[in-house]
Amino acid sequence: MAEPRISSIDGKLAEEFAVPSHVEEVKEKMAAFASFHAEAGRKVVLITSGGTKVPLESRTVRFLDNFSSGRRGASSAEYFIDSGYAVIFLHRHRSLYPYTRMFLTINMLDALEFQGGGAPGNTGEVVVNQQVLPNIAKVLKRYEEVKKSRLLLPIEFSTLSEYLHLLKAAAQALSKIGSKAMFYLAAAVSDFYIPASEMPEHKIQSSNGPLQLSMKMVPKILSPLVKEWAPQAFVISFKLETDASILLDKARRALDTYRHQAVVANVLDSRRGYVVVVTLETQAELILTEEDVKNEVEIEERIVSNLTSAHDNFITQQVA
Amino acid sequence: MAEPRISSIDGKLAEEFAVPSHVEEVKEKMAAFASFHAEAGRKVVLITSGGTKVPLESRTVRFLDNFSSGRRGASSAEYFIDSGYAVIFLHRHRSLYPYTRMFLTINMLDALEFQGGGAPGNTGEVVVNQQVLPNIAKVLKRYEEVKKSRLLLPIEFSTLSEYLHLLKAAAQALSKIGSKAMFYLAAAVSDFYIPASEMPEHKIQSSNGPLQLSMKMVPKILSPLVKEWAPQAFVISFKLETDASILLDKARRALDTYRHQAVVANVLDSRRGYVVVVTLETQAELILTEEDVKNEVEIEERIVSNLTSAHDNFITQQVA
Repeated sequence: MAEPRISSIDGKLAEEFAVPSHVEEVKEKMAAFASFHAEAGRKVVLITSGGTKVPLESRTVRFLDNFSSGRRGASSAEYFIDSGYAVIFLHRHRSLYPYTRMFLTINMLDALEFQGGGAPGNTGEVVVNQQVLPNIAKVLKRYEEVKKSRLLLPIEFSTLSEYLHLLKAAAQALSKIGSKAMFYLAAAVSDFYIPASEMPEHKIQSSNGPLQLSMKMVPKILSPLVKEWAPQAFVISFKLETDASILLDKARRALDTYRHQAVVANVLDSRRGYVVVVTLETQAELILTEEDVKNEVEIEERIVSNLTSAHDNFITQQVA
Repeated sequence: MAEPRISSIDGKLAEEFAVPSHVEEVKEKMAAFASFHAEAGRKVVLITSGGTKVPLESRTVRFLDNFSSGRRGASSAEYFIDSGYAVIFLHRHRSLYPYTRMFLTINMLDALEFQGGGAPGNTGEVVVNQQVLPNIAKVLKRYEEVKKSRLLLPIEFSTLSEYLHLLKAAAQALSKIGSKAMFYLAAAVSDFYIPASEMPEHKIQSSNGPLQLSMKMVPKILSPLVKEWAPQAFVISFKLETDASILLDKARRALDTYRHQAVVANVLDSRRGYVVVVTLETQAELILTEEDVKNEVEIEERIVSNLTSAHDNFITQQVA
């Protein structure tokens, strides 16, 4: 795999991917967040989470997307905070969110009731039925603590263009805290896109017959991120495949190409119980046992524990 | 536009779109729901809502989607219920839902608090802060009434295949109540798909270079729905365009082709304030004024009011 030329990626980003209007403002916010927490002695992790939307028309009706609920990113954010990190959570709009992710499977109105029962004309308090949401008090308490200590900075994206520009901004913002920054790139990013210049303005008409789509390769942003934008940071990418037989080879090739610190490799069907953390020298299998699953242990707890240790070693080596 | 051959559509559905395993069970549920409410003198509307997911691989990582939050379907469901209808809500998984749609823009945990303030170790009631959600008591009361009277039957889909088969099942289930059934087809359904037989099993590899996609035309299911599955029903389709200049022509052509009762025509940018209800003989513009917007009137209230009147006339004519 030839190494992508960095300067060409930077140029392509500016030319072919619409720059979000708020990118400078967000960058300043992220830089302030990182400095504040680094000065307080904390490490900072940038988590990306959820899939990217790739429009097929400039007035978008249709788009290409990547499967991702955002569960891994959202739960990892909680474990990083529990481990003392401050978290920038760069996530797809409406994907799973830390702490609120517990509401995913229920209709919130089914968990609410009028205090003292629903007498007609009742205008009193609306309370959470804790038989429906048994963990709500614990989760709300933790959420309020995290909010008060400002340990979580949420930033949203929807399109691939927004994702790419906001990730670049994050990398530049975090470069100021050097090796104290971790990048945990769990988002499911499209490999393909249609450049703005080749996109039809209006909705593609089905009366024109079958659809022939020709999509270009998305620039490999990991390359400038590692080499240019945040060269001192601890960088983790994710590799999701459906075919287990090619997974580890692809993970190793990514490390060879980009020279970042680790790849979390996983297979679609088993991703919630099994991952391999691959580095240039090591390969660690993380597995949930049946016992773990019964106890509602999440694999993200293991992933975060593995990576925070590795990050500590990395920081020590940089200083030494 | 040539009229699609119905028998070929039925065959295509069975061959090229995976049948969801629960389709018969859902069909029985919908038929029982329709009979129950028709016997109680109610009309029944089948609302479709949200976008369809079109997989590019059989172990799906990538998919094509249509822009739709499901707002129109979810709010229309509420107005149909207010108008005395029972509603089957065939919607995309995690799209907007009647009544809960009010929570869309907030993080639910920001609307909850511990009763009497958050004293440390508090394990008491968790209540809704009604300054954050001022309408919650009203909405919860209405939601509970609707649940008790069983006026809303939710059915979920994610993929285009699920949508097509579940819509067919719904049409057959509702055919038993004749002209008392309305179809309100607000979902944003893909016009293009890749047949199961032509789909790669595994994740498409970006190392193979740029992506060439060749997608077939989705069969026009409106044709068998109107002519075969539910020939006595009152059927409304939706037409969304980005180019206003072709909108009404496309709406008229759809009516000419399928011979159903009305098309709700709308343009992406103005869809929340302006639609045209087009029938073979009439054309009604529904517009929200600035005053309406200030009073939080929703255009779906107008659409539903227009169509329920037309449905009443339709039923009277059938009987006469």
